[in-house]
Amino acid sequence: MNEVLKQIKNRKSMRVFEDKPIEAHIKEEIINSALEAPTAGAMMLYSIIDITDESLKKKLSVLCDNQPFIAKAPLVMIFIADYERWYDSFKFEECNPREPGEGDILLAYSDAIIAAQNTVVAAESFGIGSCYIGDIIENCEEVKELLGLPKYVVPAAMVVYGYPTEAQKNRTKPARFEKKYIVYENKYHSLSKEEHVKMHTTKNENRGIKDKDISEEIKAFCKRKYMSAFSLEMNRSAGEYLKKFRTK
Amino acid sequence: MNEVLKQIKNRKSMRVFEDKPIEAHIKEEIINSALEAPTAGAMMLYSIIDITDESLKKKLSVLCDNQPFIAKAPLVMIFIADYERWYDSFKFEECNPREPGEGDILLAYSDAIIAAQNTVVAAESFGIGSCYIGDIIENCEEVKELLGLPKYVVPAAMVVYGYPTEAQKNRTKPARFEKKYIVYENKYHSLSKEEHVKMHTTKNENRGIKDKDISEEIKAFCKRKYMSAFSLEMNRSAGEYLKKFRTK
Repeated sequence: MNEVLKQIKNRKSMRVFEDKPIEAHIKEEIINSALEAPTAGAMMLYSIIDITDESLKKKLSVLCDNQPFIAKAPLVMIFIADYERWYDSFKFEECNPREPGEGDILLAYSDAIIAAQNTVVAAESFGIGSCYIGDIIENCEEVKELLGLPKYVVPAAMVVYGYPTEAQKNRTKPARFEKKYIVYENKYHSLSKEEHVKMHTTKNENRGIKDKDISEEIKAFCKRKYMSAFSLEMNRSAGEYLKKFRTK
Repeated sequence: MNEVLKQIKNRKSMRVFEDKPIEAHIKEEIINSALEAPTAGAMMLYSIIDITDESLKKKLSVLCDNQPFIAKAPLVMIFIADYERWYDSFKFEECNPREPGEGDILLAYSDAIIAAQNTVVAAESFGIGSCYIGDIIENCEEVKELLGLPKYVVPAAMVVYGYPTEAQKNRTKPARFEKKYIVYENKYHSLSKEEHVKMHTTKNENRGIKDKDISEEIKAFCKRKYMSAFSLEMNRSAGEYLKKFRTK
């Protein structure tokens, strides 16, 4: 297994960081890795907001489901799916453009996440841990105001980076579902109830957890995560962002 | 610059491949790199469809804006943002779940693209080229039918992989916009008309193109890409996919 694959395999989310800044030249390389990422038609349909203001970091950590570790990360970047820049270019040059649509913003969303994942891989190559914060989609009104977001953008992900503590490094990476439940050949496969139980059971077994009641586990997870206030808020807020891209 | 950064920097899209299959164990490692990717709450909110059926590859190449090189790629995978698997789990266990919303599917979209980008990075480490095909969002009716897609999924990206020809390897990587137009500190920055012109001019200059009329270039690009039939189709189709995630 080559070094790149090893790093990909070992990489897990890190949420607690040493009190040690990321060196300027390393930060530069991490950001460059985003700019070198694949991008639809070389359009770079994303923007990156580098959060260096500590009070802003703190506000964002509260708005992102109140996760204080965000405010303690030495590097925090927000990846924004951005059709505003090109729409503005089209308007400046009097192209009489249509308004950006849902396909446009999904393409921009891809661009933003591809760039983000490149930074995660680049950071890992320096021994720098990272964690995606999907919660940046929540609370659109406050986030838009704080970051000065224009009309045709959607925050796709916040990523926090830092040198992980020993405890974080030694944490076990969460088990994944087995390949056969995720990768299909030529056609989508909907899981039967039996396969669904097996999928969750095997995942638990791979974490060394045996005889756990899957039904209770799923019910608790559904209640704690999927039906939670932050999940409902994420859906409301995402709807607000996406609304303006709908075909009139 | 370490090896990971070098590969990220040099990586460019490859669209013409040697007539040489990707070895089974390498394909396995590429797929594993997806499964090891960061994923929201370890939920793996994506599915991968590995297109091995040559006639299906051909049909997809036509549906994706008629790009024959897709059908010639030795490895073609579609990354699907997938909330169906978990929604089914919640239903199987009688959790009385709400329907997945726009925030849920955006989170799944991120998961799918993060996984896709890990495969692109992993492929590169084997000298295997790749190209994202965003057009998989188009023609939802035919794509859904061909791939047997259920209700709560959206195709996020198709990626094609193969050993690039020498000509492809020697192709110049398209220039990027300069960092200052993409990366902002603490607040979004909307470009002025002057900055917009400078951004495009500098990009051209970095490709060795001087004295090009930016206005003509943007107008032509807008007409050829943004106002094109395939772009309108992508927006229509994306709207169809997203519609069912809207809060009722």
